[in-house]
Amino acid sequence: MALTPYQQLEQEFRRLHAFRTAASILRWDSAVMMPRGSADLRGEQLAALETECHAIVTSPRVSRLLERAEANAQGLEDWQLANLREMRREREHAIATPQSLVSRLAKATSRAEVRWLEAKQKSDFSLFAPHLEEVVNLTRDKAALIGKALNLSPYDALIDEFSPGLTAKEIDTIFTTLGRRLPGLIQEVIDQQASKPPLEIAGRIAPSKQRQLAVEIMKAMGFPFDRGRLDESEHPFTGGAPGDIRLTTRFVPTDPLSGLMGVLHETGHAMYDVGLPEAWRGQPVGRDRGMAVQESQSLLIEMIIGRNRPFLRYLKPLLERVGGVTGPEWEVENLYRLLTRVRRSLIRVDADEVTYPVHIVLRHEIEKEILSGELKIKDLPEAWNTRIHDRLGVRPSNDAEGCLQDVHWAVGSFGYFPSYTIGAVIAAQLYESLRSERPGLDEEIAAGDFSGLFGWLRENVHKHAASVSTLELIKNATGKPLSAAAWLRYVEGKYLE
Amino acid sequence: MALTPYQQLEQEFRRLHAFRTAASILRWDSAVMMPRGSADLRGEQLAALETECHAIVTSPRVSRLLERAEANAQGLEDWQLANLREMRREREHAIATPQSLVSRLAKATSRAEVRWLEAKQKSDFSLFAPHLEEVVNLTRDKAALIGKALNLSPYDALIDEFSPGLTAKEIDTIFTTLGRRLPGLIQEVIDQQASKPPLEIAGRIAPSKQRQLAVEIMKAMGFPFDRGRLDESEHPFTGGAPGDIRLTTRFVPTDPLSGLMGVLHETGHAMYDVGLPEAWRGQPVGRDRGMAVQESQSLLIEMIIGRNRPFLRYLKPLLERVGGVTGPEWEVENLYRLLTRVRRSLIRVDADEVTYPVHIVLRHEIEKEILSGELKIKDLPEAWNTRIHDRLGVRPSNDAEGCLQDVHWAVGSFGYFPSYTIGAVIAAQLYESLRSERPGLDEEIAAGDFSGLFGWLRENVHKHAASVSTLELIKNATGKPLSAAAWLRYVEGKYLE
Repeated sequence: MALTPYQQLEQEFRRLHAFRTAASILRWDSAVMMPRGSADLRGEQLAALETECHAIVTSPRVSRLLERAEANAQGLEDWQLANLREMRREREHAIATPQSLVSRLAKATSRAEVRWLEAKQKSDFSLFAPHLEEVVNLTRDKAALIGKALNLSPYDALIDEFSPGLTAKEIDTIFTTLGRRLPGLIQEVIDQQASKPPLEIAGRIAPSKQRQLAVEIMKAMGFPFDRGRLDESEHPFTGGAPGDIRLTTRFVPTDPLSGLMGVLHETGHAMYDVGLPEAWRGQPVGRDRGMAVQESQSLLIEMIIGRNRPFLRYLKPLLERVGGVTGPEWEVENLYRLLTRVRRSLIRVDADEVTYPVHIVLRHEIEKEILSGELKIKDLPEAWNTRIHDRLGVRPSNDAEGCLQDVHWAVGSFGYFPSYTIGAVIAAQLYESLRSERPGLDEEIAAGDFSGLFGWLRENVHKHAASVSTLELIKNATGKPLSAAAWLRYVEGKYLE
Repeated sequence: MALTPYQQLEQEFRRLHAFRTAASILRWDSAVMMPRGSADLRGEQLAALETECHAIVTSPRVSRLLERAEANAQGLEDWQLANLREMRREREHAIATPQSLVSRLAKATSRAEVRWLEAKQKSDFSLFAPHLEEVVNLTRDKAALIGKALNLSPYDALIDEFSPGLTAKEIDTIFTTLGRRLPGLIQEVIDQQASKPPLEIAGRIAPSKQRQLAVEIMKAMGFPFDRGRLDESEHPFTGGAPGDIRLTTRFVPTDPLSGLMGVLHETGHAMYDVGLPEAWRGQPVGRDRGMAVQESQSLLIEMIIGRNRPFLRYLKPLLERVGGVTGPEWEVENLYRLLTRVRRSLIRVDADEVTYPVHIVLRHEIEKEILSGELKIKDLPEAWNTRIHDRLGVRPSNDAEGCLQDVHWAVGSFGYFPSYTIGAVIAAQLYESLRSERPGLDEEIAAGDFSGLFGWLRENVHKHAASVSTLELIKNATGKPLSAAAWLRYVEGKYLE
């Protein structure tokens, strides 16, 4: 029997999935296994795979099949209709940007990334400025084209690539609320924490033991080691594909808590991938719902579950038994103080849960102004320094700890930053619903039983994959539209106890 | 300026190379890194890549470009002309077999492999016979089609896939010579060795120390660890690609010599890949010259160099220092006797250098008869058992140690077996020339200096890649046509000393 247009589309996107996941395994290999001298060949392999993926999505065949499938959609099930929408969405994104612009942007970001690193090392913004200018101009063109095709504002078009269905409107509302409350809140928390400083950790845990500890926790959380691995890399990440998840972290002997928190963060991502429905695997509807939801899962596990007393009650005997450490600095209350310490840091990646949104709100404001042309590139360093001082009370002494600290803009990732804090906000709202539905959660976690936690997440988040938009997903899971309220309640309850 | 047809072909084959080497890294990952439960996804990735490779080689675009480039070849350099020949060769092979036959053969071999394993485990040929029959019928069709396209006999068409330019005519001549001399030679060697049996090895070397030993030897041989890795897998192999070579072995604590010989074997393959010209990389002319020459390189390093006294003089202090082993069984002369012991084994993979060709000559005869229809599948076990008894004086007590021992025919690799012994014959002929040109070779090797050895191989074998046929390559390197003479002189000199 001949395949229907919809079935043929499933085949095409299954092939796309095979190429994409092949590239993902190769990127994992590059970061974890590949000898340094093999980068050129790897670059050619990845470029060939990416070109092929783009060719599949933008092919006239897929275009024809989409039109025919959409015109004959009556017999399809709900998830198949959602799949068709996601196929269309992906195609509109891919086809909106002409190949010549894609290629110019690839070259410009490649140059800009190199110059950004150099500028950061020398703390000299002028080395980076012309390259950022070029990336911004090309990104503006791209945003306009995608926006036109998808009927979105240019900035929303960029956000939509990372977190489908999220727009600047919701982000601005949430960020305005946070921006108003944060300066006062940060001051209160710092004042309160000043009276009970934690003991610093002096002991070491060998990387092999940190690994053993990590594996034990990941197993307790349900990570399937028969369909995934844990390795080490310079920057922790979760790669591979659902069904073959490659998770990495970094074990520093003198800082065991950082490697461990990295593992929790990545396990949050990984368990989301694990929970995506197997029946939809390989199809657009079967993917995760983008960066904001991904980040909600990693932050929920690292920040809300991991940096909290019930989890630390579970962790302490493990640290003693596997890590061989003991003493007052390893007591639950001291670990809790260390892991929830709030400080005014200039550097985003070093920031704690409470000050982190300040860094994100700043970047969100600035990237909107840069894209609109309101803020000139040459005025970026001063705008950055003034605003971070206004919000956080600290002022960079050079651009390396100011506007040169992140790689995102150099590689053209405008519209990405908000997903970190929207992710945190989503995490808090999910957590509030989860707690009200599972009053015994704290005791379960203290006992090392994570099945209730991940069972709830699977049912309310993971299993819906990309079948609904980011905002619908949260509304369905929590019964409320996304807002900053739960995050503020969570942070105030935790940090002003 | 517009690209010439030849330049466009180079681009197409460069893309092909990117996909092929990506698949090769993924196959390495499957054997070394991949969690067991991820095999289905990996199967889809590899199938998508292989389909794409086949589509590139057989595309109408490549066909048109080849015709135009061949018609305008006057400005091309010699290596480019050779490249064009190799492109054409590859295309003729790929296009000769229709997609429907490729797909039927893939399914038949996939089924046959599973049934072969079951039949071998139960030692019941009848479970495998109908599946082998199916694979033979389809392989016969394939051989006829490729033969017709390339103007070769059907069996030569199959050989040509593995060792371009080699035909049954040369193989038969060499195998006839070996077949006549071997039974007597084996008896003489066994009689002579009976008077000086080696001491068995009782000590253990931990895998981590075996690895350290292997890395030290590979470094001494010039293996570039900045563009390659050594890992462990169930079956040793050399994978990846020139520029990113992934070599594996298997370390058994109680049998350190076997892991070490495995490393030497694979390092022979790897150094061939290392020596292929960088300027031709990614092009058909830049590849190795097929299985017989590959096997000549691995056997030269493992059998001729590794299982010999100069290398063992270099190895002994390393075994003491790194492996921590000492005693009479670790003396050079005893190691030499262990590593050159000749025994009448029923199993090919356990066979020594002298009896190995008996196993190959047998398989070569039988596969020709099976393909021609002269030997019926149902008569295979009895034909096998009778002939191995006639040649080697031992008779299998069941089919698991007879005609079911190898996977090759189940997966359709007819025409592959000869490359093992042709490789050994090539190795001996190369070694004879090498020794006459470098009289100090033994002393160099005993001193751990392998630069002369690999320098000669690079100059005379590696750097020519696929620019000439298998037979021309040997003729050019040694000044003589390929024959069994050097192998016989080598084996008689070594084993009847």
